[in-house]
Amino acid sequence: MHIFERPVRFNDVDASGIVFFPTFFAYCSEALEQLLQLEIQDGYIEVVLRRKIGLPTVRISGDFAAPLRFGDTARIAIRTEHVGKRSFTLRYAVTRAADDLPVAELRCTVATTDLASTRAIEIPEDIRSVLEQHRS
Amino acid sequence: MHIFERPVRFNDVDASGIVFFPTFFAYCSEALEQLLQLEIQDGYIEVVLRRKIGLPTVRISGDFAAPLRFGDTARIAIRTEHVGKRSFTLRYAVTRAADDLPVAELRCTVATTDLASTRAIEIPEDIRSVLEQHRS
Amino acid sequence: MHIFERPVRFNDVDASGIVFFPTFFAYCSEALEQLLQLEIQDGYIEVVLRRKIGLPTVRISGDFAAPLRFGDTARIAIRTEHVGKRSFTLRYAVTRAADDLPVAELRCTVATTDLASTRAIEIPEDIRSVLEQHRS
Amino acid sequence: MHIFERPVRFNDVDASGIVFFPTFFAYCSEALEQLLQLEIQDGYIEVVLRRKIGLPTVRISGDFAAPLRFGDTARIAIRTEHVGKRSFTLRYAVTRAADDLPVAELRCTVATTDLASTRAIEIPEDIRSVLEQHRS
Repeated sequence: MHIFERPVRFNDVDASGIVFFPTFFAYCSEALEQLLQLEIQDGYIEVVLRRKIGLPTVRISGDFAAPLRFGDTARIAIRTEHVGKRSFTLRYAVTRAADDLPVAELRCTVATTDLASTRAIEIPEDIRSVLEQHRS
Repeated sequence: MHIFERPVRFNDVDASGIVFFPTFFAYCSEALEQLLQLEIQDGYIEVVLRRKIGLPTVRISGDFAAPLRFGDTARIAIRTEHVGKRSFTLRYAVTRAADDLPVAELRCTVATTDLASTRAIEIPEDIRSVLEQHRS
Repeated sequence: MHIFERPVRFNDVDASGIVFFPTFFAYCSEALEQLLQLEIQDGYIEVVLRRKIGLPTVRISGDFAAPLRFGDTARIAIRTEHVGKRSFTLRYAVTRAADDLPVAELRCTVATTDLASTRAIEIPEDIRSVLEQHRS
Repeated sequence: MHIFERPVRFNDVDASGIVFFPTFFAYCSEALEQLLQLEIQDGYIEVVLRRKIGLPTVRISGDFAAPLRFGDTARIAIRTEHVGKRSFTLRYAVTRAADDLPVAELRCTVATTDLASTRAIEIPEDIRSVLEQHRS
Protein backbone atom coordinates (compact mmCIF):
# COMPACT_ATOMS: atom_id res chain seq x y z
CA MET A 1 0.00 0.00 0.00
CA HIS A 2 1.19 3.49 -0.85
CA ILE A 3 -0.47 6.59 0.61
CA PHE A 4 -0.70 9.85 -1.32
CA GLU A 5 -2.31 13.01 0.05
CA ARG A 6 -3.55 15.78 -2.21
CA PRO A 7 -5.37 18.94 -1.11
CA VAL A 8 -8.36 19.87 -3.23
CA ARG A 9 -7.35 23.01 -5.09
CA PHE A 10 -9.52 26.08 -5.50
CA ASN A 11 -10.15 25.24 -9.17
CA ASP A 12 -10.72 21.47 -8.77
CA VAL A 13 -14.42 21.87 -8.00
CA ASP A 14 -17.41 22.34 -10.28
CA ALA A 15 -20.42 24.67 -10.16
CA SER A 16 -21.98 22.56 -7.40
CA GLY A 17 -18.85 23.09 -5.27
CA ILE A 18 -17.62 19.47 -5.38
CA VAL A 19 -14.65 17.85 -7.07
CA PHE A 20 -15.58 17.00 -10.67
CA PHE A 21 -15.44 13.19 -10.79
CA PRO A 22 -12.93 12.77 -13.65
CA THR A 23 -10.53 14.85 -11.53
CA PHE A 24 -10.31 11.93 -9.09
CA PHE A 25 -8.65 9.92 -11.85
CA ALA A 26 -6.16 12.75 -12.32
CA TYR A 27 -5.43 12.56 -8.57
CA CYS A 28 -4.92 8.80 -8.90
CA SER A 29 -2.55 9.33 -11.83
CA GLU A 30 -0.56 11.76 -9.68
CA ALA A 31 -0.45 9.14 -6.93
CA LEU A 32 0.84 6.47 -9.31
CA GLU A 33 3.40 8.84 -10.89
CA GLN A 34 4.69 9.63 -7.39
CA LEU A 35 4.84 5.95 -6.36
CA LEU A 36 6.80 4.97 -9.46
CA GLN A 37 9.06 8.02 -9.25
CA LEU A 38 9.93 7.13 -5.64
CA GLU A 39 10.31 3.36 -5.91
CA ILE A 40 11.69 2.54 -9.34
CA GLN A 41 15.45 2.91 -9.35
CA ASP A 42 15.52 4.89 -12.60
CA GLY A 43 12.51 6.95 -11.64
CA TYR A 44 9.24 7.11 -13.56
CA ILE A 45 10.44 9.96 -15.74
CA GLU A 46 13.30 7.83 -17.05
CA VAL A 47 10.89 4.97 -17.69
CA VAL A 48 8.93 7.21 -20.00
CA LEU A 49 11.62 9.37 -21.55
CA ARG A 50 14.58 7.04 -21.87
CA ARG A 51 13.08 3.57 -21.84
CA LYS A 52 10.04 4.79 -23.88
CA ILE A 53 7.55 2.77 -21.89
CA GLY A 54 3.95 3.95 -21.74
CA LEU A 55 1.34 3.11 -19.11
CA PRO A 56 -2.05 3.68 -20.73
CA THR A 57 -5.16 2.89 -18.72
CA VAL A 58 -7.26 0.29 -20.52
CA ARG A 59 -10.07 -0.41 -18.05
CA ILE A 60 -11.56 1.47 -15.13
CA SER A 61 -14.38 1.17 -12.67
CA GLY A 62 -15.38 3.12 -9.63
CA ASP A 63 -17.95 4.09 -7.05
CA PHE A 64 -18.29 7.55 -5.58
CA ALA A 65 -19.71 7.59 -2.06
CA ALA A 66 -19.23 11.16 -0.85
CA PRO A 67 -18.08 14.45 -2.36
CA LEU A 68 -14.89 16.37 -1.63
CA ARG A 69 -14.87 20.17 -1.51
CA PHE A 70 -12.27 22.95 -1.42
CA GLY A 71 -10.64 22.79 2.00
CA ASP A 72 -10.62 18.98 2.06
CA THR A 73 -7.57 16.82 1.41
CA ALA A 74 -7.93 13.56 -0.52
CA ARG A 75 -6.02 10.62 0.98
CA ILE A 76 -5.45 7.94 -1.62
CA ALA A 77 -4.33 4.44 -0.68
CA ILE A 78 -3.02 2.51 -3.69
CA ARG A 79 -2.96 -1.28 -3.60
CA THR A 80 -1.98 -3.77 -6.27
CA GLU A 81 -4.88 -6.08 -7.00
CA HIS A 82 -3.55 -8.11 -9.91
CA VAL A 83 -0.32 -8.38 -11.89
CA GLY A 84 -0.65 -10.04 -15.28
CA LYS A 85 1.82 -10.48 -18.09
CA ARG A 86 1.32 -7.20 -19.94
CA SER A 87 -1.06 -5.33 -17.65
CA PHE A 88 -1.78 -4.82 -13.98
CA THR A 89 -4.72 -3.65 -11.88
CA LEU A 90 -4.56 -1.14 -9.05
CA ARG A 91 -7.19 -0.21 -6.49
CA TYR A 92 -7.39 3.33 -5.17
CA ALA A 93 -9.30 3.88 -1.92
CA VAL A 94 -9.98 7.60 -1.61
CA THR A 95 -10.93 9.01 1.79
CA ARG A 96 -11.25 12.48 3.25
CA ALA A 97 -8.01 12.92 5.20
CA ALA A 98 -9.53 14.82 8.13
CA ASP A 99 -11.95 12.09 9.21
CA ASP A 100 -11.41 9.01 7.01
CA LEU A 101 -14.81 9.44 5.37
CA PRO A 102 -14.92 7.03 2.40
CA VAL A 103 -15.10 9.11 -0.76
CA ALA A 104 -14.44 6.76 -3.67
CA GLU A 105 -13.19 3.30 -4.60
CA LEU A 106 -11.56 3.24 -8.02
CA ARG A 107 -9.90 0.44 -9.96
CA CYS A 108 -7.65 0.95 -12.98
CA THR A 109 -6.10 -1.64 -15.27
CA VAL A 110 -2.95 -0.33 -16.88
CA ALA A 111 -1.06 -1.84 -19.81
CA THR A 112 2.68 -1.58 -20.32
CA THR A 113 3.38 -0.49 -23.88
CA ASP A 114 6.19 0.49 -26.16
CA LEU A 115 5.59 4.21 -26.74
CA ALA A 116 6.90 4.11 -30.31
CA SER A 117 4.74 1.24 -31.57
CA THR A 118 1.96 1.55 -28.90
CA ARG A 119 2.12 -2.26 -28.67
CA ALA A 120 1.75 -3.98 -25.32
CA ILE A 121 4.99 -5.30 -23.85
CA GLU A 122 5.73 -7.54 -20.87
CA ILE A 123 5.79 -5.69 -17.58
CA PRO A 124 9.45 -4.81 -16.93
CA GLU A 125 10.96 -6.56 -13.88
CA ASP A 126 11.58 -3.39 -11.87
CA ILE A 127 7.98 -2.22 -12.30
CA ARG A 128 6.68 -5.73 -11.50
CA SER A 129 8.74 -5.74 -8.34
CA VAL A 130 7.29 -2.42 -7.13
CA LEU A 131 3.78 -3.67 -7.88
CA GLU A 132 4.34 -6.91 -5.94
CA GLN A 133 5.41 -4.93 -2.88
CA HIS A 134 2.09 -3.10 -2.78
CA ARG A 135 -0.27 -6.05 -2.75
CA SER A 136 -2.66 -5.52 0.13
CA MET B 1 -29.41 7.71 -28.96
CA HIS B 2 -27.84 11.15 -29.07
CA ILE B 3 -24.67 11.84 -31.06
CA PHE B 4 -22.12 14.40 -29.94
CA GLU B 5 -18.92 15.20 -31.84
CA ARG B 6 -15.94 16.82 -30.20
CA PRO B 7 -12.59 17.53 -31.84
CA VAL B 8 -9.57 16.66 -29.71
CA ARG B 9 -8.00 19.98 -28.75
CA PHE B 10 -4.31 20.76 -28.89
CA ASN B 11 -4.08 20.60 -25.10
CA ASP B 12 -6.25 17.50 -24.53
CA VAL B 13 -3.34 15.10 -25.01
CA ASP B 14 -0.62 13.94 -22.63
CA ALA B 15 3.13 13.50 -23.02
CA SER B 16 2.61 10.32 -25.05
CA GLY B 17 0.46 12.30 -27.52
CA ILE B 18 -2.86 10.63 -26.69
CA VAL B 19 -5.98 11.91 -24.94
CA PHE B 20 -5.53 11.54 -21.18
CA PHE B 21 -8.21 9.01 -20.19
CA PRO B 22 -10.06 11.10 -17.57
CA THR B 23 -10.60 13.67 -20.31
CA PHE B 24 -12.96 11.20 -22.02
CA PHE B 25 -15.27 11.57 -19.04
CA ALA B 26 -15.14 15.33 -19.47
CA TYR B 27 -16.14 14.81 -23.12
CA CYS B 28 -19.04 12.61 -21.96
CA SER B 29 -20.13 15.28 -19.48
CA GLU B 30 -20.15 17.81 -22.31
CA ALA B 31 -22.26 15.41 -24.37
CA LEU B 32 -24.78 14.97 -21.54
CA GLU B 33 -24.91 18.74 -20.83
CA GLN B 34 -25.64 19.33 -24.51
CA LEU B 35 -28.33 16.63 -24.67
CA LEU B 36 -30.14 18.00 -21.61
CA GLN B 37 -29.76 21.61 -22.74
CA LEU B 38 -31.33 20.72 -26.11
CA GLU B 39 -34.12 18.42 -25.00
CA ILE B 40 -35.36 19.58 -21.62
CA GLN B 41 -37.87 22.37 -22.05
CA ASP B 42 -36.31 24.56 -19.36
CA GLY B 43 -32.78 23.76 -20.49
CA TYR B 44 -30.13 22.10 -18.38
CA ILE B 45 -28.85 25.42 -17.05
CA GLU B 46 -32.27 26.19 -15.55
CA VAL B 47 -32.40 22.70 -14.02
CA VAL B 48 -29.22 23.49 -12.14
CA LEU B 49 -29.58 27.19 -11.40
CA ARG B 50 -33.30 27.65 -10.81
CA ARG B 51 -34.53 24.19 -9.88
CA LYS B 52 -31.31 23.47 -7.93
CA ILE B 53 -31.02 19.90 -9.15
CA GLY B 54 -27.61 18.25 -9.23
CA LEU B 55 -26.51 15.30 -11.34
CA PRO B 56 -23.49 13.78 -9.59
CA THR B 57 -21.96 10.65 -11.05
CA VAL B 58 -22.01 7.83 -8.51
CA ARG B 59 -20.66 4.85 -10.47
CA ILE B 60 -18.58 4.49 -13.58
CA SER B 61 -16.94 1.79 -15.64
CA GLY B 62 -15.19 1.76 -18.94
CA ASP B 63 -12.89 0.07 -21.42
CA PHE B 64 -10.44 1.91 -23.64
CA ALA B 65 -9.69 0.14 -26.91
CA ALA B 66 -7.74 2.67 -28.95
CA PRO B 67 -6.21 6.11 -28.37
CA LEU B 68 -7.31 9.44 -29.84
CA ARG B 69 -4.77 12.08 -30.83
CA PHE B 70 -4.79 15.74 -31.82
CA GLY B 71 -6.42 15.93 -35.25
CA ASP B 72 -9.01 13.26 -34.42
CA THR B 73 -12.63 13.97 -33.57
CA ALA B 74 -14.40 11.92 -30.91
CA ARG B 75 -17.91 10.81 -31.84
CA ILE B 76 -19.90 9.95 -28.75
CA ALA B 77 -23.19 8.04 -28.93
CA ILE B 78 -25.18 8.29 -25.70
CA ARG B 79 -27.79 5.66 -24.90
CA THR B 80 -29.94 5.21 -21.82
CA GLU B 81 -29.33 1.82 -20.30
CA HIS B 82 -31.39 1.99 -17.13
CA VAL B 83 -33.75 4.45 -15.46
CA GLY B 84 -34.31 3.86 -11.76
CA LYS B 85 -36.15 5.89 -9.16
CA ARG B 86 -33.39 8.27 -8.11
CA SER B 87 -30.61 7.42 -10.54
CA PHE B 88 -30.08 6.44 -14.14
CA THR B 89 -27.34 4.77 -16.17
CA LEU B 90 -26.03 5.96 -19.51
CA ARG B 91 -23.70 4.23 -21.98
CA TYR B 92 -21.29 6.25 -24.07
CA ALA B 93 -19.83 4.58 -27.14
CA VAL B 94 -16.84 6.64 -28.26
CA THR B 95 -15.51 6.17 -31.79
CA ARG B 96 -13.06 8.03 -34.00
CA ALA B 97 -15.31 10.07 -36.27
CA ALA B 98 -13.19 9.70 -39.42
CA ASP B 99 -13.37 5.89 -39.60
CA ASP B 100 -15.65 4.62 -36.79
CA LEU B 101 -12.72 3.01 -34.97
CA PRO B 102 -14.00 1.94 -31.53
CA VAL B 103 -12.16 4.02 -28.94
CA ALA B 104 -13.96 3.51 -25.64
CA GLU B 105 -17.14 2.17 -24.06
CA LEU B 106 -18.04 4.03 -20.88
CA ARG B 107 -20.97 3.67 -18.52
CA CYS B 108 -21.98 6.26 -15.91
CA THR B 109 -24.65 6.04 -13.23
CA VAL B 110 -25.91 9.47 -12.28
CA ALA B 111 -28.04 10.37 -9.26
CA THR B 112 -30.55 13.20 -9.18
CA THR B 113 -29.99 15.28 -6.05
CA ASP B 114 -31.17 18.39 -4.34
CA LEU B 115 -28.16 20.72 -4.61
CA ALA B 116 -28.85 22.37 -1.26
CA SER B 117 -29.08 19.21 0.85
CA THR B 118 -27.10 16.92 -1.55
CA ARG B 119 -29.82 14.30 -0.89
CA ALA B 120 -31.03 12.06 -3.69
CA ILE B 121 -34.42 13.00 -5.11
CA GLU B 122 -36.75 11.22 -7.53
CA ILE B 123 -35.86 11.80 -11.17
CA PRO B 124 -38.02 14.73 -12.33
CA GLU B 125 -40.59 13.81 -15.01
CA ASP B 126 -39.08 15.98 -17.76
CA ILE B 127 -35.62 14.46 -17.29
CA ARG B 128 -37.12 10.95 -17.12
CA SER B 129 -38.93 11.57 -20.37
CA VAL B 130 -35.74 12.62 -22.17
CA LEU B 131 -33.94 9.56 -20.82
CA GLU B 132 -36.72 7.21 -21.99
CA GLN B 133 -36.46 8.62 -25.52
CA HIS B 134 -32.80 7.62 -25.73
CA ARG B 135 -33.06 3.96 -24.85
CA SER B 136 -31.25 2.06 -27.55
CA MET C 1 -12.87 40.16 -36.48
CA HIS C 2 -13.94 36.60 -35.76
CA ILE C 3 -16.61 35.80 -33.17
CA PHE C 4 -16.51 32.61 -31.11
CA GLU C 5 -19.13 31.69 -28.52
CA ARG C 6 -18.44 29.22 -25.74
CA PRO C 7 -20.83 28.29 -22.92
CA VAL C 8 -19.22 28.08 -19.49
CA ARG C 9 -19.21 24.41 -18.59
CA PHE C 10 -20.22 23.02 -15.23
CA ASN C 11 -16.59 22.27 -14.38
CA ASP C 12 -15.03 25.51 -15.68
CA VAL C 13 -15.64 27.38 -12.42
CA ASP C 14 -13.68 27.47 -9.18
CA ALA C 15 -14.71 27.27 -5.52
CA SER C 16 -15.98 30.86 -5.65
CA GLY C 17 -18.29 29.93 -8.53
CA ILE C 18 -16.52 31.94 -11.23
CA VAL C 19 -14.47 30.90 -14.24
CA PHE C 20 -10.85 30.34 -13.14
CA PHE C 21 -8.88 33.05 -14.99
CA PRO C 22 -6.37 30.79 -16.82
CA THR C 23 -9.40 29.06 -18.35
CA PHE C 24 -10.11 32.24 -20.35
CA PHE C 25 -6.85 31.65 -22.18
CA ALA C 26 -8.00 28.12 -22.95
CA TYR C 27 -11.21 29.61 -24.38
CA CYS C 28 -9.11 32.00 -26.50
CA SER C 29 -7.00 29.09 -27.76
CA GLU C 30 -10.21 27.30 -28.77
CA ALA C 31 -11.31 30.45 -30.59
CA LEU C 32 -8.01 30.70 -32.48
CA GLU C 33 -8.00 26.96 -33.32
CA GLN C 34 -11.51 27.35 -34.74
CA LEU C 35 -10.62 30.46 -36.75
CA LEU C 36 -7.56 28.82 -38.32
CA GLN C 37 -9.39 25.54 -38.93
CA LEU C 38 -12.16 27.43 -40.77
CA GLU C 39 -10.11 29.90 -42.77
CA ILE C 40 -6.82 28.26 -43.70
CA GLN C 41 -7.24 26.17 -46.79
CA ASP C 42 -5.39 23.18 -45.36
CA GLY C 43 -7.02 23.56 -41.95
CA TYR C 44 -5.20 24.16 -38.69
CA ILE C 45 -4.80 20.45 -38.01
CA GLU C 46 -2.82 20.03 -41.24
CA VAL C 47 -0.67 23.04 -40.33
CA VAL C 48 0.36 21.28 -37.15
CA LEU C 49 0.44 17.65 -38.20
CA ARG C 50 1.67 17.77 -41.80
CA ARG C 51 3.45 21.11 -42.08
CA LYS C 52 4.83 20.76 -38.51
CA ILE C 53 4.26 24.39 -37.65
CA GLY C 54 3.81 25.33 -34.00
CA LEU C 55 2.10 28.44 -32.60
CA PRO C 56 3.47 28.95 -29.09
CA THR C 57 2.34 31.99 -27.15
CA VAL C 58 5.33 34.12 -26.18
CA ARG C 59 3.72 37.16 -24.52
CA ILE C 60 0.36 37.83 -22.94
CA SER C 61 -1.43 40.56 -21.08
CA GLY C 62 -4.96 41.01 -19.90
CA ASP C 63 -7.49 42.73 -17.70
CA PHE C 64 -10.46 41.02 -16.10
CA ALA C 65 -13.42 43.30 -15.49
CA ALA C 66 -16.25 40.97 -14.50
CA PRO C 67 -16.63 37.27 -13.71
CA LEU C 68 -18.44 34.61 -15.73
CA ARG C 69 -20.41 31.84 -14.05
CA PHE C 70 -22.02 28.55 -15.04
CA GLY C 71 -25.03 29.43 -17.16
CA ASP C 72 -23.22 32.28 -18.94
CA THR C 73 -21.81 32.09 -22.45
CA ALA C 74 -18.52 33.79 -23.28
CA ARG C 75 -18.51 35.70 -26.57
CA ILE C 76 -14.98 36.20 -27.80
CA ALA C 77 -14.16 38.69 -30.56
CA ILE C 78 -10.68 38.09 -32.03
CA ARG C 79 -8.92 40.94 -33.83
CA THR C 80 -5.44 41.07 -35.31
CA GLU C 81 -3.46 43.86 -33.73
CA HIS C 82 -0.05 43.37 -35.27
CA VAL C 83 1.57 41.07 -37.82
CA GLY C 84 5.36 40.92 -37.64
CA LYS C 85 7.85 38.75 -39.46
CA ARG C 86 7.89 35.72 -37.17
CA SER C 87 5.14 36.56 -34.68
CA PHE C 88 1.75 38.22 -34.52
CA THR C 89 -0.43 39.75 -31.82
CA LEU C 90 -4.13 39.10 -31.34
CA ARG C 91 -6.64 40.87 -29.11
CA TYR C 92 -9.50 38.96 -27.57
CA ALA C 93 -12.45 40.99 -26.28
CA VAL C 94 -14.51 38.70 -24.03
CA THR C 95 -18.08 39.69 -23.20
CA ARG C 96 -21.04 37.94 -21.62
CA ALA C 97 -23.17 36.91 -24.58
CA ALA C 98 -26.53 37.58 -22.95
CA ASP C 99 -25.98 41.30 -22.32
CA ASP C 100 -22.58 42.30 -23.78
CA LEU C 101 -21.11 42.91 -20.32
CA PRO C 102 -17.36 43.40 -20.77
CA VAL C 103 -15.61 40.48 -19.06
CA ALA C 104 -11.98 40.57 -20.16
CA GLU C 105 -9.58 42.11 -22.66
CA LEU C 106 -6.68 39.78 -23.46
CA ARG C 107 -3.76 40.16 -25.82
CA CYS C 108 -1.54 37.27 -26.96
CA THR C 109 1.62 37.39 -29.06
CA VAL C 110 2.15 34.12 -30.88
CA ALA C 111 5.32 32.99 -32.67
CA THR C 112 5.36 30.72 -35.70
CA THR C 113 7.88 27.94 -35.14
CA ASP C 114 9.19 24.79 -36.69
CA LEU C 115 7.90 22.07 -34.38
CA ALA C 116 10.97 19.87 -34.89
CA SER C 117 13.62 22.48 -34.07
CA THR C 118 11.35 24.82 -32.02
CA ARG C 119 13.00 27.69 -33.95
CA ALA C 120 10.94 30.69 -35.04
CA ILE C 121 10.09 30.73 -38.75
CA GLU C 122 8.55 33.40 -40.97
CA ILE C 123 4.79 33.49 -40.80
CA PRO C 124 3.55 31.36 -43.72
CA GLU C 125 1.64 33.29 -46.39
CA ASP C 126 -1.70 31.56 -45.86
CA ILE C 127 -1.65 32.26 -42.12
CA ARG C 128 -0.54 35.85 -42.75
CA SER C 129 -3.42 36.31 -45.14
CA VAL C 130 -5.99 35.11 -42.59
CA LEU C 131 -4.49 37.41 -39.97
CA GLU C 132 -4.62 40.43 -42.30
CA GLN C 133 -8.32 39.81 -42.91
CA HIS C 134 -9.07 40.15 -39.19
CA ARG C 135 -7.50 43.51 -38.49
CA SER C 136 -10.12 45.60 -36.74
CA MET D 1 10.57 35.65 -1.94
CA HIS D 2 8.88 32.29 -1.70
CA ILE D 3 10.06 29.30 -3.76
CA PHE D 4 7.63 26.65 -5.00
CA GLU D 5 8.67 23.62 -7.06
CA ARG D 6 6.26 21.70 -9.22
CA PRO D 7 7.08 18.78 -11.50
CA VAL D 8 5.45 18.91 -14.92
CA ARG D 9 2.87 16.12 -14.93
CA PHE D 10 2.35 13.68 -17.75
CA ASN D 11 -0.88 15.41 -18.74
CA ASP D 12 0.29 19.04 -18.40
CA VAL D 13 1.69 19.16 -21.92
CA ASP D 14 0.01 19.78 -25.27
CA ALA D 15 0.29 18.10 -28.66
CA SER D 16 3.66 19.78 -29.27
CA GLY D 17 4.99 18.23 -26.04
CA ILE D 18 5.31 21.47 -24.07
CA VAL D 19 3.38 22.84 -21.11
CA PHE D 20 0.26 24.63 -22.37
CA PHE D 21 0.83 28.28 -21.40
CA PRO D 22 -2.35 28.85 -19.34
CA THR D 23 -1.17 25.96 -17.17
CA PHE D 24 1.68 28.17 -15.93
CA PHE D 25 -0.93 30.41 -14.30
CA ALA D 26 -2.41 27.34 -12.62
CA TYR D 27 1.10 26.54 -11.29
CA CYS D 28 1.37 30.13 -10.01
CA SER D 29 -2.02 29.82 -8.30
CA GLU D 30 -0.80 26.66 -6.59
CA ALA D 31 2.32 28.53 -5.48
CA LEU D 32 0.25 31.38 -4.02
CA GLU D 33 -2.21 28.99 -2.32
CA GLN D 34 0.76 27.23 -0.72
CA LEU D 35 2.40 30.46 0.41
CA LEU D 36 -0.78 31.75 2.04
CA GLN D 37 -1.61 28.37 3.57
CA LEU D 38 1.86 28.26 5.16
CA GLU D 39 2.22 31.84 6.31
CA ILE D 40 -1.20 33.13 7.30
CA GLN D 41 -2.01 32.12 10.82
CA ASP D 42 -5.52 30.94 9.96
CA GLY D 43 -4.39 29.29 6.74
CA TYR D 44 -5.62 30.17 3.28
CA ILE D 45 -8.48 27.70 3.45
CA GLU D 46 -9.92 29.50 6.49
CA VAL D 47 -9.53 32.84 4.70
CA VAL D 48 -11.79 31.55 1.95
CA LEU D 49 -14.20 29.33 3.83
CA ARG D 50 -14.68 31.10 7.16
CA ARG D 51 -13.69 34.70 6.46
CA LYS D 52 -15.29 34.54 2.97
CA ILE D 53 -12.49 36.48 1.31
CA GLY D 54 -11.86 35.97 -2.39
CA LEU D 55 -8.66 36.67 -4.32
CA PRO D 56 -9.65 37.12 -7.97
CA THR D 57 -6.95 38.01 -10.47
CA VAL D 58 -7.80 41.28 -12.19
CA ARG D 59 -4.73 41.93 -14.36
CA ILE D 60 -1.96 39.76 -15.74
CA SER D 61 1.02 40.02 -18.02
CA GLY D 62 3.79 37.66 -18.92
CA ASP D 63 6.60 36.63 -21.21
CA PHE D 64 7.46 33.06 -22.09
CA ALA D 65 11.12 32.50 -22.93
CA ALA D 66 11.52 28.72 -23.06
CA PRO D 67 9.22 25.71 -22.92
CA LEU D 68 8.93 23.11 -20.17
CA ARG D 69 8.35 19.45 -20.96
CA PHE D 70 7.39 16.29 -19.08
CA GLY D 71 10.40 15.38 -16.95
CA ASP D 72 11.16 19.01 -16.06
CA THR D 73 10.33 20.66 -12.76
CA ALA D 74 9.15 24.27 -12.67
CA ARG D 75 10.76 26.39 -9.94
CA ILE D 76 8.63 29.41 -9.20
CA ALA D 77 9.97 32.36 -7.19
CA ILE D 78 7.16 34.64 -5.96
CA ARG D 79 7.95 38.25 -5.06
CA THR D 80 5.63 41.04 -3.99
CA GLU D 81 5.92 43.95 -6.38
CA HIS D 82 3.23 46.29 -5.09
CA VAL D 83 0.73 46.38 -2.24
CA GLY D 84 -2.15 48.79 -2.71
CA LYS D 85 -5.28 49.36 -0.67
CA ARG D 86 -7.56 46.73 -2.19
CA SER D 87 -5.21 44.88 -4.52
CA PHE D 88 -1.63 43.71 -4.75
CA THR D 89 0.75 42.67 -7.52
CA LEU D 90 2.98 39.60 -7.49
CA ARG D 91 5.81 38.63 -9.83
CA TYR D 92 6.47 34.99 -10.60
CA ALA D 93 9.87 34.10 -12.05
CA VAL D 94 9.61 30.59 -13.48
CA THR D 95 12.82 28.66 -14.18
CA ARG D 96 13.65 25.07 -15.04
CA ALA D 97 14.80 23.62 -11.72
CA ALA D 98 17.56 21.42 -13.15
CA ASP D 99 19.59 24.24 -14.69
CA ASP D 100 17.92 27.59 -13.83
CA LEU D 101 16.95 28.18 -17.46
CA PRO D 102 14.56 31.16 -17.48
CA VAL D 103 11.15 29.90 -18.62
CA ALA D 104 8.66 32.68 -17.90
CA GLU D 105 8.17 35.97 -16.08
CA LEU D 106 4.56 36.48 -15.03
CA ARG D 107 2.89 39.29 -13.11
CA CYS D 108 -0.56 39.04 -11.53
CA THR D 109 -2.61 41.75 -9.83
CA VAL D 110 -5.04 40.26 -7.34
CA ALA D 111 -7.94 42.02 -5.63
CA THR D 112 -9.23 41.19 -2.17
CA THR D 113 -12.99 40.81 -2.29
CA ASP D 114 -15.93 39.86 -0.16
CA LEU D 115 -17.04 36.54 -1.64
CA ALA D 116 -20.72 37.19 -0.91
CA SER D 117 -20.98 40.61 -2.56
CA THR D 118 -17.93 40.23 -4.88
CA ARG D 119 -17.02 43.81 -3.86
CA ALA D 120 -13.39 44.79 -3.30
CA ILE D 121 -12.39 45.11 0.34
CA GLU D 122 -9.26 46.46 2.00
CA ILE D 123 -6.44 43.94 2.16
CA PRO D 124 -6.70 42.29 5.59
CA GLU D 125 -3.75 43.02 7.90
CA ASP D 126 -2.52 39.42 8.12
CA ILE D 127 -2.44 39.05 4.33
CA ARG D 128 -0.78 42.48 3.97
CA SER D 129 1.87 41.41 6.46
CA VAL D 130 2.71 38.23 4.52
CA LEU D 131 2.92 40.24 1.29
CA GLU D 132 5.27 42.81 2.83
CA GLN D 133 7.63 40.03 3.92
CA HIS D 134 8.04 38.88 0.32
CA ARG D 135 9.08 42.13 -1.30
CA SER D 136 12.23 41.47 -3.27
